[in-house]
Amino acid sequence: MSTERAAARTPDNVLERFHGVIPAGGTGTRLWPLSRAAAPKFLHDLTGSGSTLIRATYDRLRPLCDGRTMVVTGIVHRRAVLEQLPEIEDMNLVLESEPKDSGAAIGLAAAILHRRDPGIIMGSFAADQVIAPVEVFQDAVRAAIHTAAEGYIVTIGIKPTHPSTGFGYIRAGEPLAIDGAPSARAVIEFVEKPSQEVADGYIASGDYSWNAGMFVAPVDLMLKHLSANEPDLYAGLMEIAEAWDTPQRVEVARRVWPTLPKIAIDYAVAEPAAAAGDVAMIPGEFNWDDVGDFAAIGRLNPAEENSELTVMGEGARVFSENASGIVVSDTKRVIALIGIDDVVIVDTPDALLVTTKEHAQEVKKAVERLRASGDTDVL
Amino acid sequence: MSTERAAARTPDNVLERFHGVIPAGGTGTRLWPLSRAAAPKFLHDLTGSGSTLIRATYDRLRPLCDGRTMVVTGIVHRRAVLEQLPEIEDMNLVLESEPKDSGAAIGLAAAILHRRDPGIIMGSFAADQVIAPVEVFQDAVRAAIHTAAEGYIVTIGIKPTHPSTGFGYIRAGEPLAIDGAPSARAVIEFVEKPSQEVADGYIASGDYSWNAGMFVAPVDLMLKHLSANEPDLYAGLMEIAEAWDTPQRVEVARRVWPTLPKIAIDYAVAEPAAAAGDVAMIPGEFNWDDVGDFAAIGRLNPAEENSELTVMGEGARVFSENASGIVVSDTKRVIALIGIDDVVIVDTPDALLVTTKEHAQEVKKAVERLRASGDTDVL
Repeated sequence: MSTERAAARTPDNVLERFHGVIPAGGTGTRLWPLSRAAAPKFLHDLTGSGSTLIRATYDRLRPLCDGRTMVVTGIVHRRAVLEQLPEIEDMNLVLESEPKDSGAAIGLAAAILHRRDPGIIMGSFAADQVIAPVEVFQDAVRAAIHTAAEGYIVTIGIKPTHPSTGFGYIRAGEPLAIDGAPSARAVIEFVEKPSQEVADGYIASGDYSWNAGMFVAPVDLMLKHLSANEPDLYAGLMEIAEAWDTPQRVEVARRVWPTLPKIAIDYAVAEPAAAAGDVAMIPGEFNWDDVGDFAAIGRLNPAEENSELTVMGEGARVFSENASGIVVSDTKRVIALIGIDDVVIVDTPDALLVTTKEHAQEVKKAVERLRASGDTDVL
Repeated sequence: MSTERAAARTPDNVLERFHGVIPAGGTGTRLWPLSRAAAPKFLHDLTGSGSTLIRATYDRLRPLCDGRTMVVTGIVHRRAVLEQLPEIEDMNLVLESEPKDSGAAIGLAAAILHRRDPGIIMGSFAADQVIAPVEVFQDAVRAAIHTAAEGYIVTIGIKPTHPSTGFGYIRAGEPLAIDGAPSARAVIEFVEKPSQEVADGYIASGDYSWNAGMFVAPVDLMLKHLSANEPDLYAGLMEIAEAWDTPQRVEVARRVWPTLPKIAIDYAVAEPAAAAGDVAMIPGEFNWDDVGDFAAIGRLNPAEENSELTVMGEGARVFSENASGIVVSDTKRVIALIGIDDVVIVDTPDALLVTTKEHAQEVKKAVERLRASGDTDVL
């Protein structure tokens, strides 16, 4: 057992140590032209709930954090994020002047929180995932907090619904027998996106969960692994964190941030921590979707009764005759569909996508072609 | 032989008696949303030639008319038609204050021309057809003029390329042995759009041509049949024609036009004239297309080499990956197509159509639904 585990406080106040962190990055290329650099996935309501994904993420954490939530996003999204989350204070809004990958983004949140209180347990949840029921999610997070309080970096594993080759997996080990977290298990390793054959084996074994990038951890344990694995990154983050709650915040961040190395949190912390026996897993029994493409939007937004066509978008004016699939309308234009099946149509003021559910994953390729051709005005 | 046939002038000056008439009406509903009330089919370049269909129609007739051309169109299209045909004088631009069908439109042209010179032979050719080679068309019209000069209403029949159920047919009789028109035949009757079985029989017999609504006729013979079949229409048209080349033109047209009965020229003149033995036919050996739907646009505009996608529209920004079909772009938007076959996409500023070549004929139905729902702003 590590020092942190031994130092865990009593279970009574454990939940009060929890702070939410919401990394809001990534443009969601597979959802172009709806999602794009200027209006990424997390700023859209992709479930028809009336909430953008980032607002839903915040609301899902609210009963656990009671306002103790930090958001990390690109500086260009400042205004849009504050429109969605007006309750976020400046000190809890980390604005990246340029993208530096998840190691720096989540590491800086850990460093700032650690400076405020080294006993904080942070929970990091991406801004662009869809989860239901929220109560089941919240129970899993509570169990993760209890487990983290015992000195673990705790990932919430998603129970696979099929042998996906599109996700990384978490390989679970022995049960940990932790108070308040009876389902907690040790994590043996994280594994990268597998081949189909390997994925089939994972599902059959029952020991593998999807890695959704959700984790709950004591900030001091996060920083311990970060300093061991990425000392330069750690030093830079500590320098910014030192200045964060002072008048020097902007000046120091502006100077240091661009010098930070780019590395994913998986390599900077999670994988080495797993190798060190410091990672645990709580199985997530909720429904989870990372809304990876427009086919996912079709799944998340069933068509109305007597229709096979999902229509999304306020004020959409869609007329269909023998058509099925998905229409996402981000304009006031009339859209007429006739005799076409499993189609995906995304209509925005400056770009139109027409594909099929089957080819939804290939949208990324089209975006790459557009970028290569210099048509970046619509990306 | 009718009086008119006996009164025919010498063949020498027959071609000089010819005047072209271009009825430019109809919204081309099957080409919505490209073609619509405010910008009907004839105002578009649907062949990639650089000319709108009405301009191409005018140019095709020019060697035969030498400026003796009259256009009949809706008053809302005045400006657009004059932009296309700046050489048209006011006296030769008949503006309908409301649509009154082809009987009134073509009948008024005949009446005005007759008042200028009762010896005129008119030739009426719709503004929205595609014809090639033009020389073969012009030879057919010359033969039709020679035949008309013998006292016939002469239709130009289109040699069927397949047993279409979408066109009316012309049933030809005996050859007429007319100087300058060796292919001229009598017409026994006009027949409406047939069933498939009947159409198959027509093709097998060799005596049937498609009725493209093209005809060449002495104006006095046109008016004779019009007065016999539709005396009220005839009287109204004569009243307008009387005032046409006087300062009273606008006042009289505005008063009388709305009172005219609505009837197609086929019923008002062509069919009764055929029954009376006054109709002849010249076989048209040219390629003819009425651009009836977007599949026709695909036929008329082959894809570029190494592509199965026809792209139309100046400044179109289309990116495709494993896609075939037709894209008509009337905007500057980026259009991305991925993994979709035989698609038809028509992108305009306020309306988008997505269908397939196979379902192109059903566009009319969608337009009717839009009209029924009150969404007439895009029609």
